[in-house]
Amino acid sequence: MTPDEFREYGRQVVDWIADYYERIESFPVLSPVAPGHIRAALPEHPPQHGEPFDAVLRDLDRTILPGITHWQHPSFFAYFPANASGPAILGDLLASGLGAQGMLWATSPAATELETHVLDWLAELLGLPSAFRGNGVIQHTASDATLVALLAALHRASGGRTEGAGVRSGRFAVYTSNQSHSSVEKACRIAGLGADALRKLDVDPATLAARPEHLRELLTADRAAGVVPALLVASVGATGTGAVDPVAELAAIAREAGAWVHVDAAWAGVAAVAPEFRWLNDGLELVDSYATNPHKWLLTNFDCDTFWVADRTALVSALSILPEYLRNAATESGAVIDYRDWHVPLGRRFRALKLWAVIRWYGAEGLRAHVRKHVELAQEFASWVAADDRFEIVAPHPLALVTFRLCAGDEATLELMRRVNASGELYLTHTAVNGGTALRMSIGSPWTERRHVEAAWAALSR
Amino acid sequence: MTPDEFREYGRQVVDWIADYYERIESFPVLSPVAPGHIRAALPEHPPQHGEPFDAVLRDLDRTILPGITHWQHPSFFAYFPANASGPAILGDLLASGLGAQGMLWATSPAATELETHVLDWLAELLGLPSAFRGNGVIQHTASDATLVALLAALHRASGGRTEGAGVRSGRFAVYTSNQSHSSVEKACRIAGLGADALRKLDVDPATLAARPEHLRELLTADRAAGVVPALLVASVGATGTGAVDPVAELAAIAREAGAWVHVDAAWAGVAAVAPEFRWLNDGLELVDSYATNPHKWLLTNFDCDTFWVADRTALVSALSILPEYLRNAATESGAVIDYRDWHVPLGRRFRALKLWAVIRWYGAEGLRAHVRKHVELAQEFASWVAADDRFEIVAPHPLALVTFRLCAGDEATLELMRRVNASGELYLTHTAVNGGTALRMSIGSPWTERRHVEAAWAALSR
Repeated sequence: MTPDEFREYGRQVVDWIADYYERIESFPVLSPVAPGHIRAALPEHPPQHGEPFDAVLRDLDRTILPGITHWQHPSFFAYFPANASGPAILGDLLASGLGAQGMLWATSPAATELETHVLDWLAELLGLPSAFRGNGVIQHTASDATLVALLAALHRASGGRTEGAGVRSGRFAVYTSNQSHSSVEKACRIAGLGADALRKLDVDPATLAARPEHLRELLTADRAAGVVPALLVASVGATGTGAVDPVAELAAIAREAGAWVHVDAAWAGVAAVAPEFRWLNDGLELVDSYATNPHKWLLTNFDCDTFWVADRTALVSALSILPEYLRNAATESGAVIDYRDWHVPLGRRFRALKLWAVIRWYGAEGLRAHVRKHVELAQEFASWVAADDRFEIVAPHPLALVTFRLCAGDEATLELMRRVNASGELYLTHTAVNGGTALRMSIGSPWTERRHVEAAWAALSR
Repeated sequence: MTPDEFREYGRQVVDWIADYYERIESFPVLSPVAPGHIRAALPEHPPQHGEPFDAVLRDLDRTILPGITHWQHPSFFAYFPANASGPAILGDLLASGLGAQGMLWATSPAATELETHVLDWLAELLGLPSAFRGNGVIQHTASDATLVALLAALHRASGGRTEGAGVRSGRFAVYTSNQSHSSVEKACRIAGLGADALRKLDVDPATLAARPEHLRELLTADRAAGVVPALLVASVGATGTGAVDPVAELAAIAREAGAWVHVDAAWAGVAAVAPEFRWLNDGLELVDSYATNPHKWLLTNFDCDTFWVADRTALVSALSILPEYLRNAATESGAVIDYRDWHVPLGRRFRALKLWAVIRWYGAEGLRAHVRKHVELAQEFASWVAADDRFEIVAPHPLALVTFRLCAGDEATLELMRRVNASGELYLTHTAVNGGTALRMSIGSPWTERRHVEAAWAALSR
């Protein structure tokens, strides 16, 4: 495609996206297609000869859109948000255009330095501890962040021996709340510890936050049995209900036992851009690593998980291998960061550009306004639920997630969910709370206004 | 950013990218900046209030471009290519605009079904075995593909016991050529086996391909010692010199020992779009998994590693965890693929769109022409090197990578590399071959023409 063809088709695509946002409310939020429907509409074989780009746009409308669940729809209340925004889309487009691959500092110094710099900006905006400055990196997802935190923890707990000798069944343990994301168990499996190494902490039934006393009991038992506590993963805004663990208390206990402390604040952490939500950071001065996802609730297209370590030594030691074909003067000088040593992949996209564009376009005030709007709408929604005798709220909801159910029971609650989702008017999902089923009203689309939340409540309470 | 603002700034960004390609030859290929230069030019603090997008574009020119190593420059001959192309950039832009997150089939059926379908198209274009049909997935990078192949291998080798109990030091072994990519060792470390579990196969000094007899010896010794052979990683186009392992022979031996066979064809594999390079697929009917990177040499922006398994059972079993908040009717029906169970991350971008756009824009013929052009240029370059008494070629070069050195020795060879790279006219990197140093001339940019290769040779032979 020549530069001039790119200009022409590029404008068509930009207009297609602008049009998409203008008509997004005309689509059912949840795609209604049956399994196999999309594949059946696609040609069986790839084309022998090239086609004009218009054909792709035509088929996007005809064939692909019916199979899209519209995550950017203002009435998307499922899971957690996956914010897109104009500046992020365009920042990412610039990254695609440059096509620079920043595996090493030397392979595009700006890709590395802008990333370190913008993560310092974000750390400042969130009010993170100063130990994280200069020690930030963009990971693919929070699952990847948890995995590399575990690898750094194993390096530290073993004095570096695991890199050569590997792990030994039953030697190390990992601790996390029974409300934590499934990625903690996945990381234990990937890192060779197995799910048996995972100790799930009981939670307070009212707050659904991990109980520090239970952590202390488990640590005592493990140490008595010769098991090494490697990692504690505390959740700030757990996936099911948004539960916030008591990080300071948990971290103090875990540190005493020598464990690495990682905080997974994938969804909730970014709310700390607003000073009234800085309490989310309580205890972070005691932790070893921290992750939050601008690609969830901070207007930055997927993928952009931001991850910081208080000391990079263990992380880099766990992941660094230097073959001859990657040697270069800058790396050997020790004066630069080579981000390839901070995660699983070697190659890396210039993802800092989109985060840079987002922070500059919105500024601190714009980011705060974004988060505040959703929290206010969620609080208002919660007040409507609380005032209706047929419903009950099942967990604290200090941010933009409200978990609630029909008093009539689990089956009625699930049936209500199925009915509203099938209507296409909104989309929300469910979770398990204290053995029962609850619905999750998760508010976070940049396009959501009060009228969308009102309409959702009207549909739910109809 | 409103849709109308997006239209306006989107056009500016599209034009910026088109202009960038029109002026790309005016930049030094390798960024000449010193460590810290880029950060020093960036404001210390993030803005309190939003800025217009024009300011981002202005600073991109002033502050970021000097720190870019231009991977899309026609005289970029370093590492392997990281192809960008118009249709890929625009396909990825559409993915950003839609902002759909395809972790489950249900969260956007089209994202899953188009991915399965387009990977079938690519398997057909490459002439891959029919067992791979319906079993393809896009991974972040080839390093991720190697890691998940190892996890599937451990599942199978342990009868599923590693997911719970973890691995045990010294129990499992992994085999790969001493020319293989460092990601194989990295995967062993990440998966808890440790680097000690990795057995490096000797290579034939002329072809640099792994010696099957050495694999047989190592397997025999390991089995006698009670070590379980878990995985063989064969390389098709190894990183240093492009060496191609004898996959059929290696696979036959490894299968007999019960090991999973993974083929890492990250760079070279895509050349099989042209029938004359189908020999690269020899033996694939005997392997369990295969990876190649359209984001290297097939015109599809990073990230897009395509990975296939002959049987998905072990892979999905190794990585699947189903918490309540992800349960849904489609998953429970068993009729759909949930790609979250095929890799480390949970969330996923709609990456199939860009590969779909590339295949449609170029068609099979266009993709073949792309690969053929680079191979022809590389063969011509090799003929010039071979005809010059001061140089020698050090490895076979059937594709678009030529490895060569100055007969005057390692230091003279490295000095030549430093001199041409500092000129800004071209960029190439080095590797180690049979204990000596060699330069790698890797041809693969869509913009590279004969005149760029001629100019590179003129600079090198000056």
